[in-house]
Amino acid sequence: MDDILNNKCDLLFDFYELAMANGFLKTGIDETVAWFDMFYRPAKEIGGFCVMAGVRQFAEYIKNLSFSEDDLSFLKSKGMDDAFIDYLRNFRFSCDIWAVEEGTPIFANEPVVKVRGPVIQALLLETVILLSVNHQSLIATKANRIVRAAAGREIIEIGSRRAHGINAALNGARSAYIGGTRATTSVAAAKIFDIPVFASMSHSWVQMFDSEYEAFCAYARAYPDNCVLLIDTYDTMGEGIVNAIKAFDDVLAPMNKRPRGVRIDSGDLAYLSKKIRRALNDAGYPDCNIYASNSLDEYIIRDMLQNGARVDSFLVGERLITSASSPVMGGVYKLSAIEKDGKIIPKIKISENVAKITTPYPKLLWRLFDNETGKAIADVITMEDEDLSNAKTYELFDPDYTWKRKTVSEFVARQLLVKIFENGELVYKFPRTDKIRSYCAEQIDTLWEEVLRFEYPHNYYVDLSQKLWNEKQKLIDSFLSR
Amino acid sequence: MDDILNNKCDLLFDFYELAMANGFLKTGIDETVAWFDMFYRPAKEIGGFCVMAGVRQFAEYIKNLSFSEDDLSFLKSKGMDDAFIDYLRNFRFSCDIWAVEEGTPIFANEPVVKVRGPVIQALLLETVILLSVNHQSLIATKANRIVRAAAGREIIEIGSRRAHGINAALNGARSAYIGGTRATTSVAAAKIFDIPVFASMSHSWVQMFDSEYEAFCAYARAYPDNCVLLIDTYDTMGEGIVNAIKAFDDVLAPMNKRPRGVRIDSGDLAYLSKKIRRALNDAGYPDCNIYASNSLDEYIIRDMLQNGARVDSFLVGERLITSASSPVMGGVYKLSAIEKDGKIIPKIKISENVAKITTPYPKLLWRLFDNETGKAIADVITMEDEDLSNAKTYELFDPDYTWKRKTVSEFVARQLLVKIFENGELVYKFPRTDKIRSYCAEQIDTLWEEVLRFEYPHNYYVDLSQKLWNEKQKLIDSFLSR
Repeated sequence: MDDILNNKCDLLFDFYELAMANGFLKTGIDETVAWFDMFYRPAKEIGGFCVMAGVRQFAEYIKNLSFSEDDLSFLKSKGMDDAFIDYLRNFRFSCDIWAVEEGTPIFANEPVVKVRGPVIQALLLETVILLSVNHQSLIATKANRIVRAAAGREIIEIGSRRAHGINAALNGARSAYIGGTRATTSVAAAKIFDIPVFASMSHSWVQMFDSEYEAFCAYARAYPDNCVLLIDTYDTMGEGIVNAIKAFDDVLAPMNKRPRGVRIDSGDLAYLSKKIRRALNDAGYPDCNIYASNSLDEYIIRDMLQNGARVDSFLVGERLITSASSPVMGGVYKLSAIEKDGKIIPKIKISENVAKITTPYPKLLWRLFDNETGKAIADVITMEDEDLSNAKTYELFDPDYTWKRKTVSEFVARQLLVKIFENGELVYKFPRTDKIRSYCAEQIDTLWEEVLRFEYPHNYYVDLSQKLWNEKQKLIDSFLSR
Repeated sequence: MDDILNNKCDLLFDFYELAMANGFLKTGIDETVAWFDMFYRPAKEIGGFCVMAGVRQFAEYIKNLSFSEDDLSFLKSKGMDDAFIDYLRNFRFSCDIWAVEEGTPIFANEPVVKVRGPVIQALLLETVILLSVNHQSLIATKANRIVRAAAGREIIEIGSRRAHGINAALNGARSAYIGGTRATTSVAAAKIFDIPVFASMSHSWVQMFDSEYEAFCAYARAYPDNCVLLIDTYDTMGEGIVNAIKAFDDVLAPMNKRPRGVRIDSGDLAYLSKKIRRALNDAGYPDCNIYASNSLDEYIIRDMLQNGARVDSFLVGERLITSASSPVMGGVYKLSAIEKDGKIIPKIKISENVAKITTPYPKLLWRLFDNETGKAIADVITMEDEDLSNAKTYELFDPDYTWKRKTVSEFVARQLLVKIFENGELVYKFPRTDKIRSYCAEQIDTLWEEVLRFEYPHNYYVDLSQKLWNEKQKLIDSFLSR
């Protein structure tokens, strides 16, 4: 079981990472200390922010990083040199890693993971960090959008069968829970991550019996305390709801039990839910919940509620577990500096695409919260020697349109990057999943409504400090003047 | 390593499967033999067909299916009865499973996996079968589209960092290879599935050196036989290509080595590739390949080639590994019949959505190939007692528009569902991945161009036999006449 959580799969690298590492060793610059940042590039479909997730998975993987003899002979067969094979055989991880804590809203272009260590090690982490954070942040973000669309009604994650493999199902369920879903149908995810588990019935249960009524009675007898009946196998309003009420009357009532709900999985869910609500109320079951499923997402749920749908609980599968509207989070991992004789040498990547120009130097990431409202005002990326924690006022400016300036005051500045590994040792204690979930909800509450909007959200400020902006500009200028 | 291949994660179920199984045991119908079909529902974005994949993964999982004491106490804590816990403790798998072989083109609404066994077991397989086949067929299908768009140029899969977790990266690389990619950058996938592995250089390699030229020379010295230089770190046409040619001249030429290629990852790839081709040819390197990457998919590649792009090798990542244009394959797993006193009792699911009405009865799936052209004419779904293998003529008809009829002759009919498990034993021997890949290419060749079209492809015939159609109609009529 732990194998999945810990990702016990060796050699989770892109081959170029090993080829680079082998080459650096050959070139004698393997021990040069390098700094890398992970950040994501903006994507309209994802919305104005993401919810950070996936730190635990990459941390577990890195903690267990090692190379078997079998791995080493494979690498040798692919042209890696003996010196590098020896290096890997005696591999001892010694990097520092900082990350934004899981559940925190994050924004495009800001460093959400930062790595410092011998270049030969730091570059090996690219695939596992990106794969974990890209995937899990994507799902936590999508889940959070869906949860917000439901405006207080519960969301249950049912996506396993359409997930992209086992990790996608399990870590997806965890990420969805962090984003605010109330339960999962995945038994393995429930067990590993201690997430509430949910069951209703399947069409096959109904079909196994000679009649729908018989099937409902048998289920009510089997699960009198947790009786959710699926009423759309044959004809939802024609007989489904009638048989369900009859089974509640005939089986549960004599036991003094109340039904938990009915579920619909086809037809027009908004329309049906209203008719079902009336039928249940008329039959004396106003406390019986209505569960709805069928390719739902935040847009459909929002529209259904606008149609006056009487759904208490939305079961959301494929469009959540794959983030179907935007299945790619574009996180990248880029060199920002190296150290030479104890001094920082900044590194930049120029590009034909302006958006692909990186920001040099090791950085700190600060979030400024307004003292009065508690709302997040802006994120500021600074050099490592800048301290905003006691700043009284701060002048924000747009790194692209620098004449846009605004001085803020009466705020608290909090550093978002926290230490996960120190000199190769895991030093961060991961909170329980439900704690991360409630922390996430709190942090989402610090964002203005306009930032939370699904489409064309307000652009939250993510600014560089004046000092960092100047240094970046200097490097661009010196490149241009060559 | 095998843990990933074998999916050693316990309890990979949706909770309702266990709740149903527990309920069937309680109700005393747990040993009733049930038949289930997996099929997928049509989705415009996926195209006219899919490439079957994921059989190996679910087979390995099912082969190893067992329940630890830890699992059992978890299930007990979630309300499962002692009798069911005991059943799971002594679990012995005894189902028969048939599946369409990996690499075969499959079509919507036809059974691609068929299960027969005690209902209490057969329904437990739903999540693992769907999760494996939905994900892997999706990726194999997307890869095949991309491979076809490249019209003979090679596709290299580089998607790990944007995959939905580790299984998605590894099984995704395997599925992509089945669909026709030539190599992967995933070291783990290369090792586990014996797929060719590819490396080029990263931007960080270039940035680690004081100049791009130095970085190129160091790389050429490290990898003289496999020298692919990434030339867009600073300015592709300004100095990137100039430095690359200079490094080829200064380092490789004296060693009598030829460069393998240059890679571009930003800018207008079609335009740049033409300028680079000219520069390389002028410098005496007409044999140096051009590699291109940057959010490619089948549509962009097709357009680039129409623009006259001179790319030899496309590196395709996020849009392949997530099937970004359509990240969900809608495969479902539905009861088709039960057995009572040795007799088949057909089962149907009626629905408000006509597309959700299932086809009852255990089935065979036949593909008819034209004797002269070798092309696939149609798929026919029959009852289990119908044999088309010696048929001389066959009357096809559309199950929805039954007046559309066409008699075909001069064909060979091949059964597509082959036995994977017999009485709980794995009896199928999986071919090597490269064999599946070449089989896939052959089978794609049996489809008419019009079926292969990316958008609005010709609707390939997937028909019911007259007998099966009649039986289905009988069940619908008897339902309607209630």
